[in-house]
Amino acid sequence: MAFVLSNPLLSLRAHSIASTDSAFCPRHTVNPVVAPTHKSHLTPVRSTSIRASATNGLQHTQSKRILVLGGDGFCGWPTTLYLSELGHDVVVVDNLSRRKIDLELECDSLTPIQSISQRLSAWRSVSSRHVRFVYLDVAREYDRLLELLVREKPDAIVHFAEQRAAPYSMKASRQKRYTVDNNVSGTHNLLAAIVESGLDVHVVHLGTMGVYGYGTSGGEIPEGYINVVLPGGRESRILHPSYPGSVYHATKCLDQILFQFYQKNDSLRITDLHQGIVWGTNTTQTRKDERLINRFDYDSDYGTVLNRFLMQAALGVPLTVYGTGGQTRAFIHIQDTARCISLAIANPPEPGAQVEIFNQVAETHRVRDLAKLISDKTGCEVKNISNPRNESAENELDVANRKFRSLGLEPTTLEMGLLDEVVSIADKYKHRCDKSKILPNSFWNKNRRRECEQFGMSVSDLGAYSVAEEEAMLYSLSKGDMSKMEKLRQVLQGS
Amino acid sequence: MAFVLSNPLLSLRAHSIASTDSAFCPRHTVNPVVAPTHKSHLTPVRSTSIRASATNGLQHTQSKRILVLGGDGFCGWPTTLYLSELGHDVVVVDNLSRRKIDLELECDSLTPIQSISQRLSAWRSVSSRHVRFVYLDVAREYDRLLELLVREKPDAIVHFAEQRAAPYSMKASRQKRYTVDNNVSGTHNLLAAIVESGLDVHVVHLGTMGVYGYGTSGGEIPEGYINVVLPGGRESRILHPSYPGSVYHATKCLDQILFQFYQKNDSLRITDLHQGIVWGTNTTQTRKDERLINRFDYDSDYGTVLNRFLMQAALGVPLTVYGTGGQTRAFIHIQDTARCISLAIANPPEPGAQVEIFNQVAETHRVRDLAKLISDKTGCEVKNISNPRNESAENELDVANRKFRSLGLEPTTLEMGLLDEVVSIADKYKHRCDKSKILPNSFWNKNRRRECEQFGMSVSDLGAYSVAEEEAMLYSLSKGDMSKMEKLRQVLQGS
Repeated sequence: MAFVLSNPLLSLRAHSIASTDSAFCPRHTVNPVVAPTHKSHLTPVRSTSIRASATNGLQHTQSKRILVLGGDGFCGWPTTLYLSELGHDVVVVDNLSRRKIDLELECDSLTPIQSISQRLSAWRSVSSRHVRFVYLDVAREYDRLLELLVREKPDAIVHFAEQRAAPYSMKASRQKRYTVDNNVSGTHNLLAAIVESGLDVHVVHLGTMGVYGYGTSGGEIPEGYINVVLPGGRESRILHPSYPGSVYHATKCLDQILFQFYQKNDSLRITDLHQGIVWGTNTTQTRKDERLINRFDYDSDYGTVLNRFLMQAALGVPLTVYGTGGQTRAFIHIQDTARCISLAIANPPEPGAQVEIFNQVAETHRVRDLAKLISDKTGCEVKNISNPRNESAENELDVANRKFRSLGLEPTTLEMGLLDEVVSIADKYKHRCDKSKILPNSFWNKNRRRECEQFGMSVSDLGAYSVAEEEAMLYSLSKGDMSKMEKLRQVLQGS
Repeated sequence: MAFVLSNPLLSLRAHSIASTDSAFCPRHTVNPVVAPTHKSHLTPVRSTSIRASATNGLQHTQSKRILVLGGDGFCGWPTTLYLSELGHDVVVVDNLSRRKIDLELECDSLTPIQSISQRLSAWRSVSSRHVRFVYLDVAREYDRLLELLVREKPDAIVHFAEQRAAPYSMKASRQKRYTVDNNVSGTHNLLAAIVESGLDVHVVHLGTMGVYGYGTSGGEIPEGYINVVLPGGRESRILHPSYPGSVYHATKCLDQILFQFYQKNDSLRITDLHQGIVWGTNTTQTRKDERLINRFDYDSDYGTVLNRFLMQAALGVPLTVYGTGGQTRAFIHIQDTARCISLAIANPPEPGAQVEIFNQVAETHRVRDLAKLISDKTGCEVKNISNPRNESAENELDVANRKFRSLGLEPTTLEMGLLDEVVSIADKYKHRCDKSKILPNSFWNKNRRRECEQFGMSVSDLGAYSVAEEEAMLYSLSKGDMSKMEKLRQVLQGS
């Protein structure tokens, strides 16, 4: 397919965003918990009053030492700054894997993010706060991780250190395997190291709404646990059944079981945050200096749906909706990611309590409604393309988020004006966009690949695959005929 | 504690075990499926009529090419021989990890097992059947695994290639991490390689009853899936909730989710066998030649409860029951493991069908009843010791095993005389036993360790730990006091 490139008619303009967060208020004794007065489950595209000046219940009682694993990433970086601004002593632990995957995908953040050293140095000059950095692979360097825990004795560890893109996790065997090995080993190393250290440390983990599957709950998706009637009529409270839709989502389901076990066996204190799709780019903290800018991914592997649409709008190309666009998904703004994590840190489970699970979402939307919203604002065409994902064409989604609301969160919604800011960022940096990266390049299975290829999407060339992957493809192509395979090989080698 | 070593009063004597399995009957067209005529759930220590001459429904219709991953291990080896005898073309794939762990634990099979080459050579001389061997680490050598699949084009793959001892998986961080990394990566590599190969191959995986937890089902434990009533009154069929009791059991729960996903996404054909505790040593096949003998583990990490009791009886030392012995567990004889796998191979799920799950168990027993059974027969004392495991002191267990019964399996039970054979093996080789390996040496958590230490059990000496593990222990001992840590270190170093 070919895009008609025209000048975008951008009716969305950047607003000056006022700082909405209070600075750190030490030693507050006010209990921020507000009892919910009504059933606050989410419905698609609700109208919500703006309370931008609210502190969102972020008073807390003490400064903590916090390790942020994956603190250089899209969610990790703004969270790091937010926690630092609140007065916590923050250490970023990262192996820069997200930047390395950029190299692998020959892609880059649309925004010109700075090196982690430059970022932290800028933060120090802006805020006078010192955030330290440890270059460490949580999944591979267990002994150093343990030493770090023993040395730092953190009160809390925020665990973002996982490969977080579903499309990347489905690209090919190598990426599937990396996602499983990295995410499961990383999470398990963390848990084993905490036990071995003997420390009482609160783990706050970024999970995903995708662990639940879509439409399997029988109604509103509860926060982590589900009351069921078992055969024989006995009532029980169980972890919500797992029904992941990608290898990435599967790893978060695996994490859940590890958390359940380590809580039961070693009384670890764990909060698992089942987050929706994050949109937006900057936060009050990253806006303080251009060098603090957060990353913006627009490519088909790492760019989340809303950010991709906004990039397409900025470029004036059609918004590409997968399938019918009938998928309903949960969303949260990047600023609220940071706020929720802060709330989770301030409210650890009691020792011995089961894993605390929050649904970290603000609102739900159907994908085609999002496309229409942006199309209406920008005049861009909407184009339905074959779905590279193996998923239901249409689903309803009703999600409980009462826990964070009861802690005082007033979430940012799409209607609160921040969309304009993201469009302005997409517009400002669109010269940095590689348009070849926007269309899907990861396919969930061979049927999805075939259908998308028939539709004319580009696929990876063979050069991107390992020798074994190539061999398997040759085998598949030749239907196991070895002489045919040999010929194919010769053709590839040009002889 | 000290054992009183006396001459064992062995009233159990070895019987000559008649061959109970028909040889391979090619091209049968008889449908072996027998509909169950009654509810065949299990109850503890039932009286079951012996049908030793039954063929157990093992007629099948064709010879298949089968890879047995982990085919050198305790279950893998007899299964390999059984499948080979049935006429299948079998390839053993193993990295000999079980033998390597013997080296690490400074322990060995009680029975003098031969090298894999000697085993296969003996099998060829005895049966005229050729079983090949590939030295390969499924968890680490993905490319070679894929090449193997492409080259061999197996019809079925039996997947035993996982670390399978719960105590070992709880020994320390290193063993926890090895178990997670090895088991999850191995299973996932296999699934990814099958997808990449494009082959239609049936995976038969050895799971465990432990995925269910004990007493969480609300009655009889069903075979894999559970019908529940969800909030709002909607009925649903879900994977039985996971509630693992060790890191090892957790890995089998993780496997389950990966199986569910790869079935859904790529239509892989998978059978997951939730096996009980295996007892016994030899099978009809391994008895054919001394060089084919199966391994017999009696140590506290790898020895299963019944085999440990029998070893203790042979040595004339007290049978050590953990806690009250009120734990009820499911059991299966090693010969039935092989039979069940053969039945599973002969009955693959249809393409597109959900993961097939069987409970691979014959009967259930309470641990103290087992101890009493053996004590009554041998005159050995029973001694209750502190439980190294973190588990309920007492539990009921009621397990469905209708599926294998409907396929014709008449399981071997404890009352069928084979116990005598195991005792005779324990007696025959007791000179090879290292008695220091029988008492628990892996503890589920710090509380269990403390209690067992107070009881006088030995613990690993520090030399068995990594530098980081040692440092963490020093830290823990010194309560974070660095000068105290330094002194401890000096003491350890003898300066």
